[in-house]
Amino acid sequence: MIMVKASIITIGDELLIGQTIDTNSAWIAVRLNAIGIEVLRRVAVGDEKTAIITALDEEAAKADLIIMTGGLGPTSDDITKPLLCAYFDGKLVLHQDTVEHIKNLFSKMNRPVTERNLRQAELPDTCSPLFNRLGTAPGMWFEKNGKIFIALPGVPQEMAAIMEDAALPKLDALFKATPVLHCTTITAGEGESFIADKLVDFEALLPQHIKLAYLPDASFVKLRLSATGREKNALQHDLQIFQERLVAVLGKILVALDDIPVEKILAESLKEKNKTVGTAESCTGGLIGHLITQVAGASNYYLGSVVSYSNEVKENVLGVNAATIAKHGVVSEAVAVEMVKGALTVLKTDFAVATTGLVGTEDAEGVKHGTVWIAAGTNERTVAQSFYFRYNREKNKELAARNAILMLWKLVTGRV
Amino acid sequence: MIMVKASIITIGDELLIGQTIDTNSAWIAVRLNAIGIEVLRRVAVGDEKTAIITALDEEAAKADLIIMTGGLGPTSDDITKPLLCAYFDGKLVLHQDTVEHIKNLFSKMNRPVTERNLRQAELPDTCSPLFNRLGTAPGMWFEKNGKIFIALPGVPQEMAAIMEDAALPKLDALFKATPVLHCTTITAGEGESFIADKLVDFEALLPQHIKLAYLPDASFVKLRLSATGREKNALQHDLQIFQERLVAVLGKILVALDDIPVEKILAESLKEKNKTVGTAESCTGGLIGHLITQVAGASNYYLGSVVSYSNEVKENVLGVNAATIAKHGVVSEAVAVEMVKGALTVLKTDFAVATTGLVGTEDAEGVKHGTVWIAAGTNERTVAQSFYFRYNREKNKELAARNAILMLWKLVTGRV
Repeated sequence: MIMVKASIITIGDELLIGQTIDTNSAWIAVRLNAIGIEVLRRVAVGDEKTAIITALDEEAAKADLIIMTGGLGPTSDDITKPLLCAYFDGKLVLHQDTVEHIKNLFSKMNRPVTERNLRQAELPDTCSPLFNRLGTAPGMWFEKNGKIFIALPGVPQEMAAIMEDAALPKLDALFKATPVLHCTTITAGEGESFIADKLVDFEALLPQHIKLAYLPDASFVKLRLSATGREKNALQHDLQIFQERLVAVLGKILVALDDIPVEKILAESLKEKNKTVGTAESCTGGLIGHLITQVAGASNYYLGSVVSYSNEVKENVLGVNAATIAKHGVVSEAVAVEMVKGALTVLKTDFAVATTGLVGTEDAEGVKHGTVWIAAGTNERTVAQSFYFRYNREKNKELAARNAILMLWKLVTGRV
Repeated sequence: MIMVKASIITIGDELLIGQTIDTNSAWIAVRLNAIGIEVLRRVAVGDEKTAIITALDEEAAKADLIIMTGGLGPTSDDITKPLLCAYFDGKLVLHQDTVEHIKNLFSKMNRPVTERNLRQAELPDTCSPLFNRLGTAPGMWFEKNGKIFIALPGVPQEMAAIMEDAALPKLDALFKATPVLHCTTITAGEGESFIADKLVDFEALLPQHIKLAYLPDASFVKLRLSATGREKNALQHDLQIFQERLVAVLGKILVALDDIPVEKILAESLKEKNKTVGTAESCTGGLIGHLITQVAGASNYYLGSVVSYSNEVKENVLGVNAATIAKHGVVSEAVAVEMVKGALTVLKTDFAVATTGLVGTEDAEGVKHGTVWIAAGTNERTVAQSFYFRYNREKNKELAARNAILMLWKLVTGRV
């Protein structure tokens, strides 16, 4: 078995002052794991020469493969390319294929090509260029002292295109490494301490080559089994056996056997049952619809939503009674239930879910902030539950939306 | 002037296999910058003893302050606490205030306290505990060889609560450092190469202590000026002067003088003009409403949305003509314009914006994937524009939603 170790270096001041959240590293890690390359470390440094060189030296001492992202753009703050040219003892030469590609890209956009754009085609002669179908800056593949170095632009889509088209196939062919396999089981309804107590015996019987990790994530706890050290089919077999044992212990808190978001879990049940859903959103503001439509093919079961942020829209579009709002308040079980009925009528779906609450950080009209009522129903029956979320607006909205989708899923699958 | 350098170490296998995106580092960086502490590096390592100790040693050699997050949970994969106990020559002792706090937290949730929960109150006697009002694991403050080390739980809300309540005030009082100041200007409508060509003279005249960075971000290019090396008021003054020069060169591509999302830019114009908006979303699925309602106080101007994912909802709820869909196709200027009219009528708002398009990665009914029509209007006039987005579903939806909000803002402020 070959274990290849990688380090990811992300370059850019924006990563160190918190202006940009690094999503590239996670994406790269998943793709590397899939071809058997393990990520040891991720390091972020600024657009500063010494910092970049120190990182290159230190990571090359620890890993077989170093992947860098960022600093390859056409502006003066992007210093990585000249630096790499010097680090790998090269000189900048014009790469003719890239010149043609840049001219092509700009002619498609009906924009003139500037000198600055064409400078993107200048590459160190010690690198193999990696084609970038989405942008002007190619990736670069270097080799030095038996280590592989790959430099990629920081724009996530361009980075991903170069990895998929050029870098990953080349790495796979070179290393032929053995994958580390992961298998995630999703639970809802209990905290990680409670689950850990239930799993004491399960954990005690885990073999050396399988690790269990707990990942609390919004209203869910994900349990990840990771297997290393043996042949791929055997690992897959082992993971399956231990996941089956896990499922037997978890009982009714089990939600899914795969690391997929709750909207995909819902999608599978709806497709299987050939049913449609609609949403009526107040405090979630459209987030439930947004999440549901992140899944390709959602148009087969998701018909739409009435986002009734104001009371007028609740009354005029969804038909919620003004008297119900006056009597129970707008954040109430009664209003959530009438919103579900309104959505079923207006959108003509088999199922609907509704949210009404205060997701911000201030109390209003006698309602404690963080309080959210969620109801889900069909024309025959409706269920409702209140929640109290204790975080900021953004997190509370996310929790409300994910719990709404979870409740809808439970209703669709007969769990409530 | 005192320059304090920090390193952030994030701990957890989930960060290295790409299961979790690290948002903690960016949050910490912004807060540290605000009290004059500069982040030099960010390092992510797995739940592995040697890797954590190597990272601690290496970062302590480079920085004055080392902030660690993760690995403090109650389950067996969280190895950081015993490791820190050994690294800082301590032994675990029960911290009575934390015991009381844990009992309190669980009694509020009506759940029994387990042995495992109480173990969170065991802390190394060489640390000062940092209070965690949102969770059971306190933060820990250590000092060794003149360097400060802070260990925090990985759950973002708990990490943030400990930083705000305890760690940041203590750091501020200790270091009294000089802030690095940033000032961001947002543009839309031109690429970074084009802008860089316009700014050649501006960049040539920048003084040594001010840096300019280009950050392309969806349909925007952000220009960040960063000032270091002098007294705070003087820096603020310098940044203001250079931002004014920048604005003079940018002309009509200027969108905002602050690093705020487009939904906040829209919010400010609507509040100023005391107008209301509504949305009619097809391909964005609710994302525009979600973004608009991320802003506290959105209920003052945002009344709601009709998410018409199916043609039936477009016709039945928004009153789009079936004949228009048959003649022009559902992804068309004509349908986008009728959706705007429908939203204005149904939601009774001053302004409305609508989207219809194919955000997925497959063509359908003669429409090229990535094509999106966006229209915005009032009862008097409507504007519309077609876009072609070339990324995946998630990114195309985001670009469509942000461009829709940008078009709405241009209409509200009389720019179109």
